[in-house]
Amino acid sequence: MKPRTLLSLLFAAFATVASAQQALWGRPNVVSPQVNQDGSITFRSDMKGTDKLTVVGDFNQTSPEPLAMERGADGIWSATTRPLEPELYSYCYFTAEGKRLLDECNAYRNRDISTYSNIVIVSRERGDRGWLYSVNNVRHGNVAKVWYPSPTLKMNRRMTVYTPPQYDGKKRFPVLYLLHGSGGDENAWSELGRATQIIDNLIALGKVEPMIVVMPNGNPNCQAAPGEWGAGMYVPASDAIKTKPEATFVESFNDIVDYIDTHYRTIKKRSGRAVTGLSMGGGHTFGIALAYPELADYYGLMSAAPRWKGQYTTDKLYDQLNNDAEMNAAMRKLFDTKPQLYWIAIGRDDFLFRANADLRRFLDENHYPYTYVENDGGHIWRNWRIYLAQFAQLIFKH
Amino acid sequence: MKPRTLLSLLFAAFATVASAQQALWGRPNVVSPQVNQDGSITFRSDMKGTDKLTVVGDFNQTSPEPLAMERGADGIWSATTRPLEPELYSYCYFTAEGKRLLDECNAYRNRDISTYSNIVIVSRERGDRGWLYSVNNVRHGNVAKVWYPSPTLKMNRRMTVYTPPQYDGKKRFPVLYLLHGSGGDENAWSELGRATQIIDNLIALGKVEPMIVVMPNGNPNCQAAPGEWGAGMYVPASDAIKTKPEATFVESFNDIVDYIDTHYRTIKKRSGRAVTGLSMGGGHTFGIALAYPELADYYGLMSAAPRWKGQYTTDKLYDQLNNDAEMNAAMRKLFDTKPQLYWIAIGRDDFLFRANADLRRFLDENHYPYTYVENDGGHIWRNWRIYLAQFAQLIFKH
Repeated sequence: MKPRTLLSLLFAAFATVASAQQALWGRPNVVSPQVNQDGSITFRSDMKGTDKLTVVGDFNQTSPEPLAMERGADGIWSATTRPLEPELYSYCYFTAEGKRLLDECNAYRNRDISTYSNIVIVSRERGDRGWLYSVNNVRHGNVAKVWYPSPTLKMNRRMTVYTPPQYDGKKRFPVLYLLHGSGGDENAWSELGRATQIIDNLIALGKVEPMIVVMPNGNPNCQAAPGEWGAGMYVPASDAIKTKPEATFVESFNDIVDYIDTHYRTIKKRSGRAVTGLSMGGGHTFGIALAYPELADYYGLMSAAPRWKGQYTTDKLYDQLNNDAEMNAAMRKLFDTKPQLYWIAIGRDDFLFRANADLRRFLDENHYPYTYVENDGGHIWRNWRIYLAQFAQLIFKH
Repeated sequence: MKPRTLLSLLFAAFATVASAQQALWGRPNVVSPQVNQDGSITFRSDMKGTDKLTVVGDFNQTSPEPLAMERGADGIWSATTRPLEPELYSYCYFTAEGKRLLDECNAYRNRDISTYSNIVIVSRERGDRGWLYSVNNVRHGNVAKVWYPSPTLKMNRRMTVYTPPQYDGKKRFPVLYLLHGSGGDENAWSELGRATQIIDNLIALGKVEPMIVVMPNGNPNCQAAPGEWGAGMYVPASDAIKTKPEATFVESFNDIVDYIDTHYRTIKKRSGRAVTGLSMGGGHTFGIALAYPELADYYGLMSAAPRWKGQYTTDKLYDQLNNDAEMNAAMRKLFDTKPQLYWIAIGRDDFLFRANADLRRFLDENHYPYTYVENDGGHIWRNWRIYLAQFAQLIFKH
């Protein structure tokens, strides 16, 4: 045998080419996770050197749920959940000593900032929530990491651009601008948010218009996600964020729209544009609507942290909306232009519920029309995926 | 405090917005890996419940190298390598019980088939090998996941397409087709191979022509990488590979070239095309050169497993090249067309060294011109990154 390196599984495959398939691609001896017929999930691990192993997952809407694993006679730990609703679940393991571990049997994992969690999807039938988040046997759009110049922020910046399967030839398409939250980046919506799967699948179901989806980086002092720009592989975004930005993300937003309108076959008018975002991105959406009231016909605030002139205004939003003359006038101007949709979604347990209640109170008192969605749970990706699927079905229908 | 879910770090950030930066983005208490001034790397871990922890990495060219970690008074394990040459290194940890773990402090990791390893880059100066593999402060090309129709394989298929920073406006660009090995997919070269960094950086140094790089999926019964097509998230590629393909990848290759030539601003002639690949992809390159001798001017075989009509021929290649009349005639026809470059690269420890020696013996005896590169090491990504950087500098210069 020749020397074998850490990564040269290819070698192992090749040396025993006739029987290699099982060794190379076969599932590991420990199968985990296993989604059972009734929607329950069985987790397993061959972890050693600990007296206790716990799987912790977001199996209910509002809080993480620990589930003790039991070690069998074969030394394999396992635990099975109750039957679960169709959904994308995140989980990890904890040892007796409190050491957080991933399920090494599961190659599917998401990075949220610098923390990885495993993911697993439960789906019962076409069209359910788990199906919406899965890669199905439907036509898929293209997903590109695109660099664009931002004269406002004085740098080249990276964004994720989804073009629908129908994007070919001469037809023009509307554009959804989809904004991430604090700590996120241009990868957040396509990875944690399953945005490309959601849009692929909703197009396949005929429930949304084929659209371009643009997912920019909302951190005005970053060119791109950590590791994807010249700040260095191990420099977190915060090292850049701490320095003073040239301008706010909202001020730079037209750099993105200009690039998209000149490089893609877009519907270059208000009725062909929607903007939505989560948390800080909901705040950006709030600000974009005020700064450029005729840019888009559809605005969606998901668990929004309203921002005005680069600052969060969540503490005293109602007072500010009433008393800040410039902000008040901008709100009036926005609703004078009659956008097709001003949409607010938030979970009852969200720490930003109060700020959004302030916003609704102001809108109600001024008879500014909006659509409101309230559901269970808090400030979590599970809700943002739900909101995206809902919002996408409301836009570009006029 | 509201309920806090597993993934809602955003919430934590927000609740304590003034001081959140450190908690949210600050490096973990345990810093790992740490690249030191002299090029050594210090690894650390807060692993508990084991009496021994070992870091195993590819710190030399030919074999993985275990390094025992020591536990300090603070309970933190650590180990420091000797000073290392500029390079991208892969590593993982093993407990006393033989349990393989990742370095949870290092968010940078690569997936090879279903196995993750951490990665770390050592670089001393602009232009060295570590720098070539890093994301530097240079202009970046766009990277897209593109679906194309393959009439030959009767399916839509996914590929990775890199367009250089210069790709804008009306200029046309040459195309490098870059093929992965057995067990790989359309993500292999851009992730494990650092191909987009290598090409970005070599363009920035003025050492390669700006080029489009096309990285298709070479498994003819797969639409895409595992989890990226409708076969299901947990179905490995092998479940599809085991079924009979409609045709070989080589037979379907023109579907890719046709799509690229109609959707990108390419130089649509022989001098604007190069094909190279590793292992099985080297075999595909060997076959493409024989099947379509005037398609490209530049062919590169990296650690190639020569394939002919869908079958590996590595065991008796020299005899087959001489005795298979059709194969022999195809070789003659190829070299009669005088390709600009027929390039062979392999490591002295590669298990395919013998097959490539057979090929060279045949080429020598027939006075077919080729360029040969031989280096240390075996069938490993470290070599394929080196080969790509070398080959890219030889093409599109005529």
